[in-house]
Amino acid sequence: MPLSVFSQRIEAAMTAAVSTTQNGTPPDQLTRAVAYAAAPGGARIRPTILLSVAMACGDDRPDVSNAAAAALELIHCASLVHDDMPCFDDADIRRGKPTVHLAFSEPLALLTGDSLIVLAFDHLAQQDADRALPLIRHLATRTGTPFGICAGQGWESERDINLSAYHRAKTGALFIAATQMGAIAAGQDPEPWEELGARIGEAFQVADDLRDALYDEAELGKPVGQDEIHNRPNAVTELGVDGAVTRLKDILGGAISSIPSCHGEAALAQLVQATAKKLIPSSSVIRVPGE
Amino acid sequence: MPLSVFSQRIEAAMTAAVSTTQNGTPPDQLTRAVAYAAAPGGARIRPTILLSVAMACGDDRPDVSNAAAAALELIHCASLVHDDMPCFDDADIRRGKPTVHLAFSEPLALLTGDSLIVLAFDHLAQQDADRALPLIRHLATRTGTPFGICAGQGWESERDINLSAYHRAKTGALFIAATQMGAIAAGQDPEPWEELGARIGEAFQVADDLRDALYDEAELGKPVGQDEIHNRPNAVTELGVDGAVTRLKDILGGAISSIPSCHGEAALAQLVQATAKKLIPSSSVIRVPGE
Repeated sequence: MPLSVFSQRIEAAMTAAVSTTQNGTPPDQLTRAVAYAAAPGGARIRPTILLSVAMACGDDRPDVSNAAAAALELIHCASLVHDDMPCFDDADIRRGKPTVHLAFSEPLALLTGDSLIVLAFDHLAQQDADRALPLIRHLATRTGTPFGICAGQGWESERDINLSAYHRAKTGALFIAATQMGAIAAGQDPEPWEELGARIGEAFQVADDLRDALYDEAELGKPVGQDEIHNRPNAVTELGVDGAVTRLKDILGGAISSIPSCHGEAALAQLVQATAKKLIPSSSVIRVPGE
Repeated sequence: MPLSVFSQRIEAAMTAAVSTTQNGTPPDQLTRAVAYAAAPGGARIRPTILLSVAMACGDDRPDVSNAAAAALELIHCASLVHDDMPCFDDADIRRGKPTVHLAFSEPLALLTGDSLIVLAFDHLAQQDADRALPLIRHLATRTGTPFGICAGQGWESERDINLSAYHRAKTGALFIAATQMGAIAAGQDPEPWEELGARIGEAFQVADDLRDALYDEAELGKPVGQDEIHNRPNAVTELGVDGAVTRLKDILGGAISSIPSCHGEAALAQLVQATAKKLIPSSSVIRVPGE
């Protein structure tokens, strides 16, 4: 299954979800800000993983998988809008464009994030009840507190950070949601899929730390050196570039071997390798395990 | 049914919902901020209306009604936390206490609002599927955009405000959610209950405008004169105090006559009257219609 097919499914599902915010007589700027925040431009890596797992599990109801993919990406987009705001990263650019609070305003950025969160759950609630409810519950768990991305950000306000809980919540949570929601969308048990999501999340965190250390702002499409500025834990600071690269390879190897036995196992391993390639900074030479 | 019974049900349901954010090893400050924002101190008027309608409709599954009441109040609490932030009202006090961004921090206030929104949907998703999904959909519609409180706030960023859409979304939306979710929680059709919610919402908006004009900060427990400061439409500015009082009486009369025919109709009319009493500033002399 070429990645472009997933990409088409994801963009169509995102467009369908976002279009519902344009019904009736909506306030113009907020409506545009929501569409701006959800527009293509990001890697769509979480919904791609979700659809890959759904395919590996049979994908018997593609509409449910597409809705789950859109809902997950909407939550990710919401988190980017809120994280970029002045009281967090105070970032000027995101995905190569001005951040929502700069392109629109701070109040509209706050409302855009809120609206995207609500839209994600609303979109899932329109699916078949037997799958909609577990999808909503898993997405909520990985979004809110104590186990979701809100908790992950919340850890940054603590004097003593529980590093394991912090990373698992901040970066891991939406990858765990991706693999587990993919399984649920295809009618399968989500439990065996948690480890794959957690490991991809760890890999992503280390890769992000490497990019933050090795790239400049123009290459990255967002500000660099944010971890240092905000005094946040970072794998490169902790292990050095070579150490972080080794750690990334180990994690990816573990991710591939954690894939549950299923019809689409081989295709999914390929997807993890393809994702890993995107994760790894081009200026560091890394051979992906199994490649 | 005395209001204190509703109050007990609401506080127990809120405590149960909020306690789930304290599982595992959560970040301490965010967990405390979520509990602080959801703590008793407000009038709990929306969940009281929800439970009143559920009772009028038979309240055959009280656990579902309680969960719906808590979810609605969690969304209201989230909106207060975000609305009080510096980029909106920049308010110092709420319900007689320092606002969340002052008691904790701006980042934690943003995350608290997000966490409360997620918690509301998560809590509903744990109820019986036949009622959980319509409850989630109705709450989402009245929370997000284009028809919810997010859209209501969004209108304040527009140069040309559609006043009817603005008021209906900003204040009306969660009252419509209250009456319709009350009906759904009791297994009844929500459609006939929309008008009652919309009219209570209008009454609440006019009453809020009167209080904003007549009270001082100590009496109100939150800053006054905010509409004037933020150049927002206000019934007192538009109609004068006497005109606004007359309008409030008309709306309450309309609210009572819009109550659908049902077993608990008389009790519900009494509840609207009792609510109206709370709404009406004591310094203006108003006789509630039907009293």
